[in-house]
Amino acid sequence: MTISKAACIGGGVIGAGWVARLLLNGIDVAIYDPDPEAKRKVGEVMKGARRAYKKMLPNGLPKEGRLTFARTIADAVADADFIQESVPERLDLKHRVLAEIDLHAPANSIVGSSTSGIKPTDMQVAMKKHPERLVVGHPFNPVYLLPLVEIVGGEQTFPEAIEVAKEIYASIGMKPVVIRKEIEAFVGDRLLEAAWREALWLVKDGICSVEELDDIMRYSFGIRWAQMGMFQVYRVAGGEAGMRHFMAQFGPCLKWPWTKLMDVPEFNDELVDLIATQSDEQSGKWSIRELEKIRDDNLVAIMEALSRQNKGRGWGAGELYNGYTKQLSGLAAKKAPALKSKAQKSAATAKAAKPVKAVKGKKR
Amino acid sequence: MTISKAACIGGGVIGAGWVARLLLNGIDVAIYDPDPEAKRKVGEVMKGARRAYKKMLPNGLPKEGRLTFARTIADAVADADFIQESVPERLDLKHRVLAEIDLHAPANSIVGSSTSGIKPTDMQVAMKKHPERLVVGHPFNPVYLLPLVEIVGGEQTFPEAIEVAKEIYASIGMKPVVIRKEIEAFVGDRLLEAAWREALWLVKDGICSVEELDDIMRYSFGIRWAQMGMFQVYRVAGGEAGMRHFMAQFGPCLKWPWTKLMDVPEFNDELVDLIATQSDEQSGKWSIRELEKIRDDNLVAIMEALSRQNKGRGWGAGELYNGYTKQLSGLAAKKAPALKSKAQKSAATAKAAKPVKAVKGKKR
Repeated sequence: MTISKAACIGGGVIGAGWVARLLLNGIDVAIYDPDPEAKRKVGEVMKGARRAYKKMLPNGLPKEGRLTFARTIADAVADADFIQESVPERLDLKHRVLAEIDLHAPANSIVGSSTSGIKPTDMQVAMKKHPERLVVGHPFNPVYLLPLVEIVGGEQTFPEAIEVAKEIYASIGMKPVVIRKEIEAFVGDRLLEAAWREALWLVKDGICSVEELDDIMRYSFGIRWAQMGMFQVYRVAGGEAGMRHFMAQFGPCLKWPWTKLMDVPEFNDELVDLIATQSDEQSGKWSIRELEKIRDDNLVAIMEALSRQNKGRGWGAGELYNGYTKQLSGLAAKKAPALKSKAQKSAATAKAAKPVKAVKGKKR
Repeated sequence: MTISKAACIGGGVIGAGWVARLLLNGIDVAIYDPDPEAKRKVGEVMKGARRAYKKMLPNGLPKEGRLTFARTIADAVADADFIQESVPERLDLKHRVLAEIDLHAPANSIVGSSTSGIKPTDMQVAMKKHPERLVVGHPFNPVYLLPLVEIVGGEQTFPEAIEVAKEIYASIGMKPVVIRKEIEAFVGDRLLEAAWREALWLVKDGICSVEELDDIMRYSFGIRWAQMGMFQVYRVAGGEAGMRHFMAQFGPCLKWPWTKLMDVPEFNDELVDLIATQSDEQSGKWSIRELEKIRDDNLVAIMEALSRQNKGRGWGAGELYNGYTKQLSGLAAKKAPALKSKAQKSAATAKAAKPVKAVKGKKR
């Protein structure tokens, strides 16, 4: 299934990232966010996303979908077949928002929640009409570039809703992974949380600075994990003897008193100060906007590099990137189907400068 | 300081990786490994490393250093100014090997240990002559490609030895990060251990398969961490409000009952079987050799992609990659300094097919 009209509830970093991905796929989006700054903030994210997509698609972007700012949740979701909720991580707020969505959205629409930790079962109790259509669709920042979306169903979620959600997310270039059992924080954030907790200890105890820790990640296992995950990397490391050998060798290490993870470092002002100060030393020379551009350029470059691997079929995120850029290029070609000769091209360019109504194809 | 002659004690995956990096930098290496299969195993790693370096240096590799297999540790280290120990992770074995190295190596040589967990203070007690020259130089697999080396000094290590070790590792294209306080497992493996432990729980509890977990890593934060580390990524995610805001928002999550890390999953046959079986399902279609090639190609492609970022200066591992490939190209050019015209080129190629004694420059 592909999306005809989407609604996004919440326009923070994640919500605006969804808006950007959808619009750049040519899909119309209605957004609801009560923040008076929402328009400006979404505009900033769109600017960054557009810039990144121009790197991905040097021959031109598809015609963007139309963005409307709705005045109520009801207005936003009224004619949407896909709704993505990205409001702050408070269960009471999620309940209020999901109840409102449920009341006004078409019965056969799919509702995805961007929550990074709350179980869908705990959220869908607020949906009195159609709780069966709620899935967690947990993305990673920046949403317009990173492909992963963790899909989690709750007790009331229909298996069919999960299947449709998979298709919907895949249709906008994402990699859906369905989590088999519902747990808080799902999989990605569990791993991130484990590493983050240990990182806080290492900095707090003065073993390393935040910059040193970042360097340790990005000059070693970061590059490994960008292309294979942990298990496949270790399989290779096991060498000729394979995974069983590796497990036998590495397994017992878990018993060593290495990590401090059984304990949580006290989250006080001192720790926040230490980390914020070291972070300024590391990155203060760039503004956040500059860092965003650097990050996005790097992400595109890595995915593009991986897209040329594996005899041109692409590997991991690069394989997906091949399919995604091909799909978007197809959409872009539809926008101006007559681009054949140089003369036609320049004529088309001149024409494209004026507002044009998009040719609506079946596949969005 | 650069290396004139190196010795490697131990020729497993890590030891052979060191041998490969050194030889490909044109440095002569003597290796000691009692395994009768050592020659074949080192040869396999060399073959892989050579292949990867050809991707990095399409215009030709430097003349390789000479590899000799020594019959004793004493023979291997006798005239080495840099010795890297990579024997299995047992303290008694480390003691025996380091005592032997210490007895026979030139007094002003630097001794690096590849240990991924043992404190240098606990190892250098076995060195009765010059314990002050021991540092941990902890690399990451594959050593010939991944740049990170964690340098850790023990109580008896001279600060000067750490400085020289930094120069030595940097001279062969690595990124040395000095760990400020000596702890077991240092920094990289603490983070890896934390994530690994959580990963084992997630698979054991049936939340996801090893393939799903790997996909979750490589389609999301793996790509992020390949270019920025955890703290810099979160700084950007904090958006306009910055690091302090991010910490305030994300910090309290640590109190949530998310991770299972306080506890260690029982490491029994059942868990080993589960993971080995799922790993076969994920990767069984490739041999380990094929996976190694895929991994190496991906790593080179990612570093190469990052080397073109940041207005051509390169970013992170890509910045280092620029310097490293330039250095190696310089060495390669020295090998055949007269490569100017096509005619000369083909003459030189013909000549290069015969064994030539390398022109020894100051900079290796």
